[in-house]
Amino acid sequence: MEKKIKIGLIGLGTVGTGVVKVLENFDNIEIKAVAVHNINKPRAVEVKNITDDAFTLVNDPDIDIIVEVMGGCDPTLKLLETAIKNGKHIVTANKELLARHGAYLFDLANEYNKVILYEAAVAGGIPIIMPIKTTMRANNFESVAGILNGTTNYILSKMEEEGLSYEECLKKAQELGYAETNPTSDVEGYDAMYKIATLANITFHKRIDINKIYREGITKITKEDIECANELGYKIKLIGLAKRTKTDEIDVRVHPMLVKKQNMMAKINNALNAVLLKGQPIGEVVFSGPGAGEMPTASSVVGDILVLASEINMMGNILPMTRCNHSELAKQINISETENNYYISITAKNLHGIIGIIGTACGKNNINILSILQKGLSDDHRSAKVIVITEKCLEKDIQNAIKELEAIVQEDEKCIQINNLIRVME
Amino acid sequence: MEKKIKIGLIGLGTVGTGVVKVLENFDNIEIKAVAVHNINKPRAVEVKNITDDAFTLVNDPDIDIIVEVMGGCDPTLKLLETAIKNGKHIVTANKELLARHGAYLFDLANEYNKVILYEAAVAGGIPIIMPIKTTMRANNFESVAGILNGTTNYILSKMEEEGLSYEECLKKAQELGYAETNPTSDVEGYDAMYKIATLANITFHKRIDINKIYREGITKITKEDIECANELGYKIKLIGLAKRTKTDEIDVRVHPMLVKKQNMMAKINNALNAVLLKGQPIGEVVFSGPGAGEMPTASSVVGDILVLASEINMMGNILPMTRCNHSELAKQINISETENNYYISITAKNLHGIIGIIGTACGKNNINILSILQKGLSDDHRSAKVIVITEKCLEKDIQNAIKELEAIVQEDEKCIQINNLIRVME
Repeated sequence: MEKKIKIGLIGLGTVGTGVVKVLENFDNIEIKAVAVHNINKPRAVEVKNITDDAFTLVNDPDIDIIVEVMGGCDPTLKLLETAIKNGKHIVTANKELLARHGAYLFDLANEYNKVILYEAAVAGGIPIIMPIKTTMRANNFESVAGILNGTTNYILSKMEEEGLSYEECLKKAQELGYAETNPTSDVEGYDAMYKIATLANITFHKRIDINKIYREGITKITKEDIECANELGYKIKLIGLAKRTKTDEIDVRVHPMLVKKQNMMAKINNALNAVLLKGQPIGEVVFSGPGAGEMPTASSVVGDILVLASEINMMGNILPMTRCNHSELAKQINISETENNYYISITAKNLHGIIGIIGTACGKNNINILSILQKGLSDDHRSAKVIVITEKCLEKDIQNAIKELEAIVQEDEKCIQINNLIRVME
Repeated sequence: MEKKIKIGLIGLGTVGTGVVKVLENFDNIEIKAVAVHNINKPRAVEVKNITDDAFTLVNDPDIDIIVEVMGGCDPTLKLLETAIKNGKHIVTANKELLARHGAYLFDLANEYNKVILYEAAVAGGIPIIMPIKTTMRANNFESVAGILNGTTNYILSKMEEEGLSYEECLKKAQELGYAETNPTSDVEGYDAMYKIATLANITFHKRIDINKIYREGITKITKEDIECANELGYKIKLIGLAKRTKTDEIDVRVHPMLVKKQNMMAKINNALNAVLLKGQPIGEVVFSGPGAGEMPTASSVVGDILVLASEINMMGNILPMTRCNHSELAKQINISETENNYYISITAKNLHGIIGIIGTACGKNNINILSILQKGLSDDHRSAKVIVITEKCLEKDIQNAIKELEAIVQEDEKCIQINNLIRVME
């Protein structure tokens, strides 16, 4: 019988609200109490046991896991310290706290045989901490580089796309809620610095002093820089970088960088984040996805909670979560019942009325044409190529239309030949 | 005191050889014995206890983990069945075995309280199985789509890049060792089918019948299709796709697809693999990296071995591998000692000799110029913009060169203004 895992949630801002929403799907987790600054503020979700004294949560013997999504170091450090000493596991999204006080907290957690998980602290929804710690553990990493701040990536993307100044794009970002009224933490690179410190820590198994990290933001980047970089084959990105030097020192820094357009990192636009790892034996891998936001961040926070809950319940069993416990066979749909857009390549040997014939066959089978491309005549001037892209339609309808067109082939000496039918990805 | 974990390695082909090489870095893992088809064949790595009877490994009470990188279902199924019944955990890279007999093996493993890990079976070096099972567990996934076969992605990339036919590119792939002499499993989509079956299984928590998967390879794709798709804004990729329909059926298939150029999947070229997951609350994430090869695949196999070894040794402790056990402070290098390429944006108000002045300042400080771009005059015809990209040089040298140029500014009424200095990503 599974024990219901009880959590104490500290913080009910954007991320905390997402966590409450997502946890509604999981019966085995109960939010025992929530701590906030102001208990009278209206909330987007309903929670019971709301308090403005977070210490009641970390001192509650009934709570198994403290989930901290409040941010800052004061009183967060004291709260998590007390929670660990009281035998609770921790899930946190607090990058600043980890970058400043991680060494102390991890030592304390080891002393009390507790675990701190923090998938949401770096790159929001992208699973990066757990893979580095587990699946990629065989690697000797050379470097880790990331686009770790969505706000600055959005600003740089807009400056490029729309040829606007830094100031104009910052304003846009603020209007859209991507940037705060005081944008310093994002645009001066502090947020990315905290995150690269944590990544460097787990990638190189060394503790990182954030006071030694070189940090430079994006405020001095002009639209002319972006244009010139573009002409020379580069994009400008704010990169958090940590790499091992030949003499086994660690080079950790955050600053704008020119990135070659062919590099995967140059293709990460708007508020997306990405992390690029290089090492042996893996070579290179890139993880990309949403770096912030209520729901993506909640995905990582709740993921950590579920990992801990599974382990607490299965104490003594190896890797309970990696096991396949489902036995139900999927109801698999036959492709004829699926809906797709289609690309159809047709060679027409007798041009007369061909578009009409195709149009009729499609129309009869409930297929609308999205675009049509007629390519020039063949060398012998006796055939032409027609490419049709359809709107979304049923596979069985498209197969019927193709059959009708192919029937004409036999009647009329190959006036139409269907060369290929390729489905289009949504 | 850590117990030395003993593994039995079945298979010493490309992946097995990589596994032996990588395990040399880990003192806590011992390869107790290796089973191969032909014990007389010369090997690239030295191993002790080589046998052509794999059953001696699965019956050896001294072995903790069976690592199976031989492939195929016969006698692999019988071997792993025996290993599990004999109380061994399993690490396998065998996608076909999992797709055909996974349901049976996972049930058996649960019955005997053993674990089967198989990170290498899907997308080679990319960590995808573990993140889906753990960190992303809070999600309700809508779809998983992957470029899961490097051979076909290489062929399609080359067809596009070089305007060659399928047959010509297949031949190239065979010469480079990307494709086998009999390429059927890759080019007809069987390999991708096994992988998407496993991904669908863990994404939707349902068992997948591979006989119901629609499968179509790339042999009918012509260079004309690739050209036409390109003109219409698409690339053609072989995609393994599994998605949940509105009526809660699972739509699983492998076939070529047109992918919009802006889609991340369209940017995955050559032998790379990628997996795109969509769901709530995460939104969209993409994992990309090497999908095959000796070393990347070994990264995943050894990763799984290390995860199991850590759990076996720390029985009763929660998530031993997620803990930070290092306490050594990194030797962090100061940015002045780092080497970079630099982008320097300069406004020159007095054009006369400016290139010479820049060149001299660089030369004096051991800086070579890689490229230089002089932009047209400003509207008042009184200044011009010069962009310099340097070869790799020391940060302190570049700072000295900048200081020298800035000194001229003061002497000569701002004849040179340094607008920006941006480092270039390697």
